[in-house]
This record gives sequence, C-alpha cells and structure tokens, in this order.
Amino acid sequence: MAQKPSIPKGTRDFSPVEMARRNYIFDTIRDVFRLYGYRPIETPAMENLSTLLGKYGEEGDKLLFKILNSGDYMRGVDMSMLENGDLNRVACQLCEKGLRYDLTVPFARYVVQHRNDITFPFKRFQIQPVWRADRPQKGRYREFYQCDADVVGSDSLINEIELVSMIDEVFRRLKINIEIKLNNRKILAGIAELIGAPEKIVDITVAIDKIDKIGLDAVKEELAERGLEPEAIEKLTPILLIDGSTAERIEKLSQLIGSTESGRLGIEEIKTVFDGVAKIGIDARLTLDVSLARGLNYYTGTIIEVKALDVEIGSITGGGRYDNLTGIFGLKDVSGVGISFGADRIYDVLNALDLYPEETSSSVEVMFTNMGANEATAAMKMLRTLREAGIASEIYPDTSKMQKQMKYADALGVKYVAIVGETEAAAGVLTLKNMTTGDQQEVTPEQAIAIIKA
Amino acid sequence: MAQKPSIPKGTRDFSPVEMARRNYIFDTIRDVFRLYGYRPIETPAMENLSTLLGKYGEEGDKLLFKILNSGDYMRGVDMSMLENGDLNRVACQLCEKGLRYDLTVPFARYVVQHRNDITFPFKRFQIQPVWRADRPQKGRYREFYQCDADVVGSDSLINEIELVSMIDEVFRRLKINIEIKLNNRKILAGIAELIGAPEKIVDITVAIDKIDKIGLDAVKEELAERGLEPEAIEKLTPILLIDGSTAERIEKLSQLIGSTESGRLGIEEIKTVFDGVAKIGIDARLTLDVSLARGLNYYTGTIIEVKALDVEIGSITGGGRYDNLTGIFGLKDVSGVGISFGADRIYDVLNALDLYPEETSSSVEVMFTNMGANEATAAMKMLRTLREAGIASEIYPDTSKMQKQMKYADALGVKYVAIVGETEAAAGVLTLKNMTTGDQQEVTPEQAIAIIKA
Repeated sequence: MAQKPSIPKGTRDFSPVEMARRNYIFDTIRDVFRLYGYRPIETPAMENLSTLLGKYGEEGDKLLFKILNSGDYMRGVDMSMLENGDLNRVACQLCEKGLRYDLTVPFARYVVQHRNDITFPFKRFQIQPVWRADRPQKGRYREFYQCDADVVGSDSLINEIELVSMIDEVFRRLKINIEIKLNNRKILAGIAELIGAPEKIVDITVAIDKIDKIGLDAVKEELAERGLEPEAIEKLTPILLIDGSTAERIEKLSQLIGSTESGRLGIEEIKTVFDGVAKIGIDARLTLDVSLARGLNYYTGTIIEVKALDVEIGSITGGGRYDNLTGIFGLKDVSGVGISFGADRIYDVLNALDLYPEETSSSVEVMFTNMGANEATAAMKMLRTLREAGIASEIYPDTSKMQKQMKYADALGVKYVAIVGETEAAAGVLTLKNMTTGDQQEVTPEQAIAIIKA
Repeated sequence: MAQKPSIPKGTRDFSPVEMARRNYIFDTIRDVFRLYGYRPIETPAMENLSTLLGKYGEEGDKLLFKILNSGDYMRGVDMSMLENGDLNRVACQLCEKGLRYDLTVPFARYVVQHRNDITFPFKRFQIQPVWRADRPQKGRYREFYQCDADVVGSDSLINEIELVSMIDEVFRRLKINIEIKLNNRKILAGIAELIGAPEKIVDITVAIDKIDKIGLDAVKEELAERGLEPEAIEKLTPILLIDGSTAERIEKLSQLIGSTESGRLGIEEIKTVFDGVAKIGIDARLTLDVSLARGLNYYTGTIIEVKALDVEIGSITGGGRYDNLTGIFGLKDVSGVGISFGADRIYDVLNALDLYPEETSSSVEVMFTNMGANEATAAMKMLRTLREAGIASEIYPDTSKMQKQMKYADALGVKYVAIVGETEAAAGVLTLKNMTTGDQQEVTPEQAIAIIKA
C-alpha cells in the first residue's frame, strides 16, 4: 500500500464528534452575538497582499501565507532582486494575494470598501478561519477560527458595557467560570506621563504584572535593569502598591494620575464602564488590571481580557477600542470597539472540564436494520414517516449480518434501533430497541415517534 | 483619501443581508443531511500539493492555488529548470501546499488517513469553501462553497435511493421545482460496446443530448464528422430514437443493450433505483437521461444531475457513484456514492424566483432608543429582560437625534422600536412602536415580550 496521506503541519481534520463539540461552541457564540444585535458578514479567505502587508508588524508580514500568482508567475520578478536574495520583496512579486491573518484587518477593509452601503453604527460579527505560518506547537495552529464582534462608528461606552455583558452571557451558557479584566490605554499613558517615561510603558506593565509573584523590591530592581531612572521608579511605587476593591483601586489611581490629561480621561472611561456593568449586573468576576497591555499597538481606549478560572490556560477572549482602524485604508475618525473569542482555547477548556452537554455526542437518533430487499423497502417507508416527524434517522444500507449492523449502531451512538424483519414488514410495524436500556417493543411508526420524542 | 481598497477578482464579500439568504440555503441543506443520518466533518483549507496534483487532470492542476513556502522558498528550486522556463515544476518546488479544489479529494484523503477510526459505511457531509484559479465570469467564482454528502464503504443501491430522496427533500423545502436526471455509467459502456466504439463515448452522449434540438439527420452527420463509422451510427440509431415513459425507455434500452454485460448490469441498477424511489414516493420529476455524461472520468455507476425547472441555469446539484475514489491514496475496493449541492447557483435560483421566506430579512427584533445617560441605563435593564426571553435586541449606543436613531432602526429592518424617555425611565416602562403598522403603546417589559412573541 502507498504511503498514508497526511495534511500540512499545524492544520487539522475534524471528525463528526469533534465537529459536534466545535459547533456547540460556535452556535453558542453565534446565538449570543445575534441576541445582542450583531449581524454576520463574511470576507474572502484571500485578500490582496497590499491589504495585509504592514498591518501586523514585520514579524506578522513573515507569517502571512502568500499565494503564488497564476500563469507566468515569473513575469513580474526582478531577477536582480532574486540574485541579491531579497526574498521578501521577490515574494511580493511572485504573489499578489495572501490568506487572511485575522478578521480585524479584512473587516476594516470591508467597512471602507462598502462604506456607502453601511448604516453606522455598524455592529458586525464574523466567524471564519484565519491562517498564520507560525511554528506549530501544542494549542497553536496554522489554521484556526476566530469569532469576532465589533461595533464601528460609535464612541459611546455603552458598546463596552454591552460587550462585557455579552462575554458574560457566552461563558454563562458554556458554564465556564471566568474573570473579565479591564484596563484602559489612557490610564497607561497617564502613568507613563506621570513618571516621565512614555517609551517604557511595556516594561512598566510587565513589572506591575509581577508584583504579586516577586514582590516590590525585585520589581524595582527589574525596572532599574530595564533602564528606568530611580526618580521614575519612585514615582511608580505608589501605583505598584495600589490594592483593595475595584472602587478603591480606581479612587487611588485617580488621586495618583488624575492630574494628567490622559489619566483623567482613562479613569473616567473605566469608571463609566464599571458603573454601567454594575447597573445591569453580570455573573462573571470583573476586575481592573493596570498591567493589562494587550494590543498596545492599536488599542486606544478600553482593553479587555478574559481568563478561565478553573483551567490553567492563556487568555480565552480579548478585545478593546481602536480609534483609527479604518484609517489605514483612508477612512478617518471611525472609532471601533470589539472582542474576539478564541474558539480553540475554549474548546480546550471545555474538554478539560468535560462540560459538553449530552446531546453533542450523536446526531442520529434511529437506525433501521436491513434484513433483505422486502424488509428494507418496508423499513424505508417507515423511515420516511419518522423523518417527516423531524427525527434524524437512517437505514443500514447493506443486508449484512445483524451483528455488524448493531456494531455500526453502537459506534454511531444512536439512541434506538428499529428492527424490521419479515413479520414486522408484513404488518407495517417495527421492533424499537432502546440502546441505553436494552428494552424493545413492537410498535407502529406513529407510536415509535411518540416514544422517541417523549 | 487613499485609493479604495478592493478584494481579489473572483472573490466576494457577503453583507448581513446576503449572509441571511446564504445561511437559509446552508441551514436547509444541513438540516436535511442530518435528518438522513449524514455527519459533518471539516478538512483544512490547505492540503499538501501531492494530495491534490494529478487528481483533476492537467487543466485542474493549473487551476490549483499554490501557497508559497515560508522562509527561504528558493532553497529547493532547481535554477536550471527556472532558466528553462519549466514553470509548472518550479511551482511545485516553490510551493508544497495548495488550497483545496473540491471536497471530494480531501474526503478521500480523510477516509484513507483515518480509516482505523472510521466505522464503515461512513456517511459524511461537508460544507466548506473551495478555490479555483478559473477565469472569473458571471456565476463563476474563485472562491465558492460546496455542500457534499457521500457514503463510502457500501455498494448498496439503497444509498442512491436515499440520495435521490434527500435531493427531493432539500428542494421541496426550498420550494424550487426540479427535475432529477439519472443515468448509469454502465449503460453508456454498454452502448459503446454495442456499437464497437468505446473511445467515442463522450461524442455519443453529446449527440444523444442534441437529438431533440437538431433532429436525427443532423446528429448522424455530426457523429460522422466526429469519426464514427457508418456501421456504428446505424447501430446507435435505435438508441437515439428511444422515447416514451421512463419504464418504456428502460425496457427498450434493455432490449437493445441487454446483450452486453455492462449494459445488462447498468439497466438492472437503474431499474432498482427507479423502483425504490417510486416505492417511497418523491415530489420531483425523475427521469432517465442516457445523454447524461457528468463526471465520466470518475463515476462508475449511477450518475445524478438536477435541473431547476423554472429558471434557465446549469445543473444545480449533481453526483454519482465512484468505485475507486480512495484507491488514489492506496485504499482499494471502497465504493462510494455522493452528491454535491451548488449553493451559489441555488442562491441565484432563489433570487430569480424571489423565494426567500420573510424571516431571512432581519435578525434584530427590537431597537431601544438612547435619550440620555439615565434613560439609557433604564433601557439597558429592560433590554436585558427582553434578551433573557430570547428576543434579539439592541440599544442605539449614542445619544443622537431621534431622527437619526429611527433611520438606523429603519435601515436594519427592526420590527419594533422601544422608546425610553424620562417618563418611561422613571416608571420602568417603555413605549413600544410597531415599525410595520406605526402603532405605539406604553407597556412593561413583560408585556412587550408577550406582544413581540405573539
């Protein structure tokens, strides 16, 4: 036999059982998106490389999957560049298209391209795969789904409150206990302004994040190593020491950075979001985390991150506000805010906690046996009656040994087997066997429907 | 402003309205697949080129989208080949992956790769996009969805009967009048054997197809031009003249080609399928069409094609039996039969006949107005109550002029607007405006739920 075929590394096949579990996640997220008034769009897998390049940093450009031009792909290639080994530029001559890297840039492109047909504010959701030429490793794939919801064309903080509420709803439905962490880019800017080190903002957030683990002195030492002046570290210290309830932390932070314009605005925004969420009420734990520095390159206001409480895993959902996403395509002053659910990590969490509802295990309820041509014909008429009642069912196609047919029914996890032998066929009835209890009884197709639906 | 961004030719964005219509099609097909006991799988967008190459003929190989290798993609390139302009072979050195061209080859690969985990017969469905570097034209895209259902590991003709019944069910639900045409590869082989010209089988089917349009004499002339001997044309003539009901046609055909082994088998198979379908009963017109030569390269038994009766358009669904699909990957003697629904053409048919149900037009039922911070807070609490009752609803995020908010509600096609002003907010009620009738009344959130659900 030939060598067993395989798929590219970092990609996956999904079996019926895996599909059922994944669809449970996608359907839950989709239902909540719809419930909140978000509307679906889809964009092509391939985008022009000019749309994608330069949007994800130099590293991101390298991780784009590029598609070789059709026909004479060497035509546009500058041979001297090729000889000089300038592979990045030659790649852009060999390829004018690439696979989408995320759903955010295609969405920005969509908004600008269709702006005359869109009524703003535009609340869209999008659930599609993305591709990245990352080194594959556990939990990181080269093809994976993103589930994004964004509003563009509104700078109201009601959008943030709605998004937090929506996150809460999704994970309540999935029965995953979570903590939603909030921060605001303007608070970080305020801190940086206060201590006079705006370029050290990432180092500062890393340090704040470590305070509980390594203690104040070690953090101060690390900050000094990272080039922060002693005076700046001194000014930062009271911020590092902030504790208490969220309300107390916001109050203390306000006293420390409220004197800066950015800080004051950031505090005001985060207070509005916390107050708004408190008024409608959510189940999830909601906290302020000034070490949260997710997407610092593009987020301009609120920053959101979600952690699962009962499983050790990275962020399972994240998002934030970006004030100039469509600006990269020439449409200015359109503020947006959105979140992205990480379906693959949520899948890992549900597997770890075994939280799938029972009905995700099988989709077929009844299998009819096949005991010969006449019996099969009788069975197929009854099968039709069951299907008309909406019961997913099938007939074993071949007249194989009973044992083989039952083994198939077992493997599929069907709830009932409908046995139609010579006697049943003649009488227009079936023997319905409950595969869980082993009980069986002779019934009409109508009686079978009543039993199965009960 | 910068140049408006665009997408690669032959690809499409789908707006919320288009998504609703497309999902109506996909959901209908998916529901019927499940009802018939088919189970979903998904395969990666990218396959190894070695999996795809040589499976679709020389022309197909050219239409594969190939993905440039990551990193130093020139490393494996034979420079002398490049200098000789052997672009096809160099492409395979530059690229080791390609985008899937259909769902059939990836499915065959899946079956072989996972054969130890699969219980046969394996009934799978798959609804995913495919990509072809075809010249884009009206109704032909470079990215489009296929909706496939196949059974592998069973040569029972019950599968064919089930597939015909399933096609009938899908189009009955979509309210599209169709004709299902059947043929059998073995009948074609019998005809070719009878007239001693097996290599002319395609010419013969083309000729049979034209008989109604151009008449017997013109068809004979054409066959002669295509190199068929006079004697062969003479033998073919009675077959060209077959008419009557399906039963009569099968009977006449049986008399003519029943003497050949292939012909006899083909007639037997097609009779079994027609008889089986007649016993369970379908709505669609079912006919024998011996000119049907779809997929002659790989189909070995039944051939199926579906035409819409009320719209001029090509085949909207097709399929057949293939006896050696997995053989290309080294797993022999696994017979399969399947069908593929052409979602894009079905979309065109539904648009042409305006057959979409009303509920595909909007997904949001209620929009709450935003008349200030206090009013919005009150509205958001009521919004939560409506959502808990499963009513898709939203609040206009900004405190804009009423006119602008109503325009947004109109554009979205919401059924109700919930107005929450100062008085309503204080009383915990809302003024519910029916956007179709214009009627409005002050109600509690609970009353609103009852009205909306009625």
